[in-house]
Amino acid sequence: MVSPEEEHARIMLGQDAASTMLGITLVDVGPGRAVTAMTVRADMVNGWGSCHGALVAAVADTAFAVACNSFGVVTVAQNFEIEFLLAAKEGDRLVATATRRSGAGRTGVYDVTVTREGSDEVVAEFRGRSRSLGTPIEPGAQA
Amino acid sequence: MVSPEEEHARIMLGQDAASTMLGITLVDVGPGRAVTAMTVRADMVNGWGSCHGALVAAVADTAFAVACNSFGVVTVAQNFEIEFLLAAKEGDRLVATATRRSGAGRTGVYDVTVTREGSDEVVAEFRGRSRSLGTPIEPGAQA
Amino acid sequence: MVSPEEEHARIMLGQDAASTMLGITLVDVGPGRAVTAMTVRADMVNGWGSCHGALVAAVADTAFAVACNSFGVVTVAQNFEIEFLLAAKEGDRLVATATRRSGAGRTGVYDVTVTREGSDEVVAEFRGRSRSLGTPIEPGAQA
Amino acid sequence: MVSPEEEHARIMLGQDAASTMLGITLVDVGPGRAVTAMTVRADMVNGWGSCHGALVAAVADTAFAVACNSFGVVTVAQNFEIEFLLAAKEGDRLVATATRRSGAGRTGVYDVTVTREGSDEVVAEFRGRSRSLGTPIEPGAQA
Repeated sequence: MVSPEEEHARIMLGQDAASTMLGITLVDVGPGRAVTAMTVRADMVNGWGSCHGALVAAVADTAFAVACNSFGVVTVAQNFEIEFLLAAKEGDRLVATATRRSGAGRTGVYDVTVTREGSDEVVAEFRGRSRSLGTPIEPGAQA
Repeated sequence: MVSPEEEHARIMLGQDAASTMLGITLVDVGPGRAVTAMTVRADMVNGWGSCHGALVAAVADTAFAVACNSFGVVTVAQNFEIEFLLAAKEGDRLVATATRRSGAGRTGVYDVTVTREGSDEVVAEFRGRSRSLGTPIEPGAQA
Repeated sequence: MVSPEEEHARIMLGQDAASTMLGITLVDVGPGRAVTAMTVRADMVNGWGSCHGALVAAVADTAFAVACNSFGVVTVAQNFEIEFLLAAKEGDRLVATATRRSGAGRTGVYDVTVTREGSDEVVAEFRGRSRSLGTPIEPGAQA
Repeated sequence: MVSPEEEHARIMLGQDAASTMLGITLVDVGPGRAVTAMTVRADMVNGWGSCHGALVAAVADTAFAVACNSFGVVTVAQNFEIEFLLAAKEGDRLVATATRRSGAGRTGVYDVTVTREGSDEVVAEFRGRSRSLGTPIEPGAQA
């Protein structure tokens, strides 16, 4: 049995070429929550030998997108902010856990914590604000 | 003649596999400022047909990194936040212009505006806080 | 002669009991920009002898509000973020300079720099995102 | 019996003239967490009839300060960001609940949710980044 949240994620991620290119996979999804993972590849490292900050943000942003779209309505990011706590290195597997914190009207606030798999080390804390567009999620849906 | 800022950028970007992978190029660099560009490829689009938000952030984050490292001291991001104003689409060429806004001690605050090339349309506004590590920029330097 | 921006500011600040209570005054206003000032009083200091961070934010937030309402349409803050660079002390006069950075549709992005008067020292950098409600600014207008 | 966290809060808030001026009270404190409250007075309302955004931030910022200082080491804010979800009105009692989310080295990340007392309505979501200065909390301590 596929849950409604899994079905919405399947449609959205099936069209998400960027997450595929970055090797981001879906680990879990439920109402207002999602877990994604990404392994830091050699081609994801910045000039100082750490995972490029925006790619740490990418695994979190995809978890955020799956979580805020889990309710079946096309929803986009208005903004996000990310605090970097520890540098991630090549070969690290990053796990991003997104949870809906609160919301009002078409707006939602989501937290995403990025950890290094197999440890309790937090690499980054991400917070995003989403806005629902009101369109139902169907194959071929666009923002 | 190569300016000191160009030399620091050359060393850092020469080691930056992530920016290379994403096709991010350096357009200009000076003391506390940098301009980068990236074309939105088919493999950079998210589930709703727009450039993945974290990849819009990537071109800005690389401009931020070049600008805050322009003074010749290894400097890393503590955080950034990004506001999305317009969706970027496949084929759009994004130009990110980073400028140092202010700072105190080892901290710097940088603004990066991402526009669509050939228009005055702002795709996103990014702000980052940097922290200098005190190490000089040399080939092989690490954070 | 009173400019339209001065007239909008006069109506809004005339109803703004909070800014009055905090001694925040308007120094200048124009289209998409405003300057406010506040002197750090003894009753504005926090547990560690510095101006309470939210009161540094207050002088900036009022400048932001005047700037984003300068166009004559009732406009409210969706979010703001503030980076603290230097502690302000009792007796310091803080000057907040707000400028519209960009926008799209009903959204505007504003930067506010808070300096210590009579120096070039930056106390804080503030960025806010506004949303226009579409209602004209008139005496008695509400959000 | 007074817990160590209560003792640290008592010292810090005993010196915090700003929180006193705003009528902010401590409801609860524990390791890495705190709850504060503030009633929106007539002199806290902005030009559009809602609680001034920076004063919503104030009740959250004080909860953040108590939580990040609960471990007995003088700790200050580096930045915070706040998302406004619902307008608070005169007479509303705002409750701010701060919890430590994560940290590394001298840095901590704290979330603060501001609700309207007696409801589950979220007025604002606040996130702050703290930096420990290393000095023990004692009467007369300064940042």
